[in-house]
Amino acid sequence: MDFTFHAPTTVHFGKGKENLVGSLIKELNVKKIMVQYGKSSVIKSGLLDKVKKSLTDNGIQFVLLGGVEPNPKLSFVRKAIEIAKEEKVEMLLAVGGGSVIDSCKYTALGAVTDIDVWEFAMGREKPILALPVACILTLSAAGSEMSNSAVITNLDLNMKKGCSTELNRCVFAICNPELTYTVNKYQTACGIVDIMAHTMERYFTDYPDTPLTDGIAEVILKSVIDAGKVLMNDPENYDARATVMWASSLSHNGLTACGRENYLAVHQIEHAVSGEFDSVAHGAGLAVLFPAWAKYIYKQNVKRFAKFARNVWGVLDDDDQSASVKGIEKMACYFASIGMPKSLSEFGIEKSAIDRLANLCTFNKTRTVKSYIPLGFNEVKQILELSF
Amino acid sequence: MDFTFHAPTTVHFGKGKENLVGSLIKELNVKKIMVQYGKSSVIKSGLLDKVKKSLTDNGIQFVLLGGVEPNPKLSFVRKAIEIAKEEKVEMLLAVGGGSVIDSCKYTALGAVTDIDVWEFAMGREKPILALPVACILTLSAAGSEMSNSAVITNLDLNMKKGCSTELNRCVFAICNPELTYTVNKYQTACGIVDIMAHTMERYFTDYPDTPLTDGIAEVILKSVIDAGKVLMNDPENYDARATVMWASSLSHNGLTACGRENYLAVHQIEHAVSGEFDSVAHGAGLAVLFPAWAKYIYKQNVKRFAKFARNVWGVLDDDDQSASVKGIEKMACYFASIGMPKSLSEFGIEKSAIDRLANLCTFNKTRTVKSYIPLGFNEVKQILELSF
Repeated sequence: MDFTFHAPTTVHFGKGKENLVGSLIKELNVKKIMVQYGKSSVIKSGLLDKVKKSLTDNGIQFVLLGGVEPNPKLSFVRKAIEIAKEEKVEMLLAVGGGSVIDSCKYTALGAVTDIDVWEFAMGREKPILALPVACILTLSAAGSEMSNSAVITNLDLNMKKGCSTELNRCVFAICNPELTYTVNKYQTACGIVDIMAHTMERYFTDYPDTPLTDGIAEVILKSVIDAGKVLMNDPENYDARATVMWASSLSHNGLTACGRENYLAVHQIEHAVSGEFDSVAHGAGLAVLFPAWAKYIYKQNVKRFAKFARNVWGVLDDDDQSASVKGIEKMACYFASIGMPKSLSEFGIEKSAIDRLANLCTFNKTRTVKSYIPLGFNEVKQILELSF
Repeated sequence: MDFTFHAPTTVHFGKGKENLVGSLIKELNVKKIMVQYGKSSVIKSGLLDKVKKSLTDNGIQFVLLGGVEPNPKLSFVRKAIEIAKEEKVEMLLAVGGGSVIDSCKYTALGAVTDIDVWEFAMGREKPILALPVACILTLSAAGSEMSNSAVITNLDLNMKKGCSTELNRCVFAICNPELTYTVNKYQTACGIVDIMAHTMERYFTDYPDTPLTDGIAEVILKSVIDAGKVLMNDPENYDARATVMWASSLSHNGLTACGRENYLAVHQIEHAVSGEFDSVAHGAGLAVLFPAWAKYIYKQNVKRFAKFARNVWGVLDDDDQSASVKGIEKMACYFASIGMPKSLSEFGIEKSAIDRLANLCTFNKTRTVKSYIPLGFNEVKQILELSF
């Protein structure tokens, strides 16, 4: 066990907590903020009005910027940075899910420098300063509310890239499970897959067993699996929404990486897929790619996959090899049971795209993706072939 | 689920991390600190020399103050505050376990005000400012390295009191499991009981089931129970020391209270006992009092105690009532198996002390302690009777 744990975000969790937003920002001595949001749903639901009222009541000035898209776009962020500089905002508030939060995180990094934020995404420059970011979460999925990462899509290059820095930690996150009641079944399922993927990306890394971290990961997975089943029939079940929302934060704030690491191998393949095919929802892409990756890789660590099968999926098989296979099957079946696609073809992607996607993922064969074995062009290609 | 989670301490966990201390403090732009420690063990082990070297190498001036006792004393803290003010130190560094950290926390609260810190302990004044505190942990037990609480003993009044405030969060905690190799069996066991108690004090609170929080608590308990067994025979087992050390932080940083609460009922009874009888090690006191409290209270929530018995202790009994009893028995047996006392009489305490202790705990019958039912003088008395 060797790690640094740092999850400084204050989480205000529970019913009605969105009404605290103005007073929480006032406590930070901030006078003017930019509020970013996505579609009109936060307007229709009345959430944005609540936020505006709370800000106004506390004397906080604000600039509103709606229109953040899923897989947030670099072009949008560049525009947001320009406005943030012109308006001299001191803080970013995201009202939405991971896309809105990530858009705010990149805006916060870009607003205090002349460096183009794509340089940060590509790792060619390192950010040293950022405006504070806070969020009101409306979608349980990305875990961005407590994570140190942010993902952005460059449409010119068809590339989706993450940037991890402690500057990306939200100052506070307001998490009211009720705000996710209206998230439809498909998006709810996508979120569940994303949360599970964040947990599994750390669970399946090449370290010795870590009883505490492994156990916490297994609890997160089991709780989310159970809550997902409930939500498919009862979308306004507060306890299940709460479990998924808190799991979203815990799965990606570093807790499940203590003594392990965060390879994010499947995420990186998925970023290539949803970077190229904008219609692919991140979670749905992961639901196809995770079982494919697992089928490809499990023989590299059968013991670990057997542990996963037994502790998460209740597989009783004594044989590690067949337990592993059954665990992966159960995972794939679960994803299907909550309405997730089983093949990339369900997105209208054709097998002819495989080479292009494998090239995108490996930056034209110039890098490998870290996993139990390094995944280069050929390995990624085989995983993609298992995704059809 | 309704909670605020805030655990901002950066944990630097792993071998050799103590050598980072000087550079970590330098990053905070701090020029002069006070280093507190307990007995000569940190001198003998060479740890203090390493710390001094790291501080000197990074140009940090320091005042050394050794002699913090277990159950740290108000009188010592008052003296430390005087020195901290005279020397104009800007930060406190604790090199030790919970007692040293708590002594530093109180010193940090007192160094920036004219209010006597006992007023904070008694809740008659509320601290609004504190110097930053960091620690190098040498004992896995109190969880003070990530918690918002600190406990102090006033020998004049024979009272031991905690003070919880976000100002008590360490800026950083250096946790190297190797630094706990020399902790003897008895103290190791005391630490394990304390960690388990912190987890159980939140687990046994009057809230509906919280799958994620409950599951994490159960994982912490099981991991620590297993690691404790290993350490009784193999005190230099790195993985087991690491599990216990990280569990110490997680059990008391708020994670196991999400959607629940922290009653600390048994802790409050124990504080009366070890406040009055300075020979009682906190963990050893808890090892006697926790089963006694459980025997007294379990009928108030048989379902919860049955869940505990099944998920933590592997009790298979279908009947909630008898499962509960078996779980409590297993807990008591485990404590005994790691060398903990089974009765207050093993500390040389006589039954005639019961009334005095119940009075101390309830401030002469002026308060009740929160549990499934409020524990007043009579209830505490019955729990104490079950402790013999």
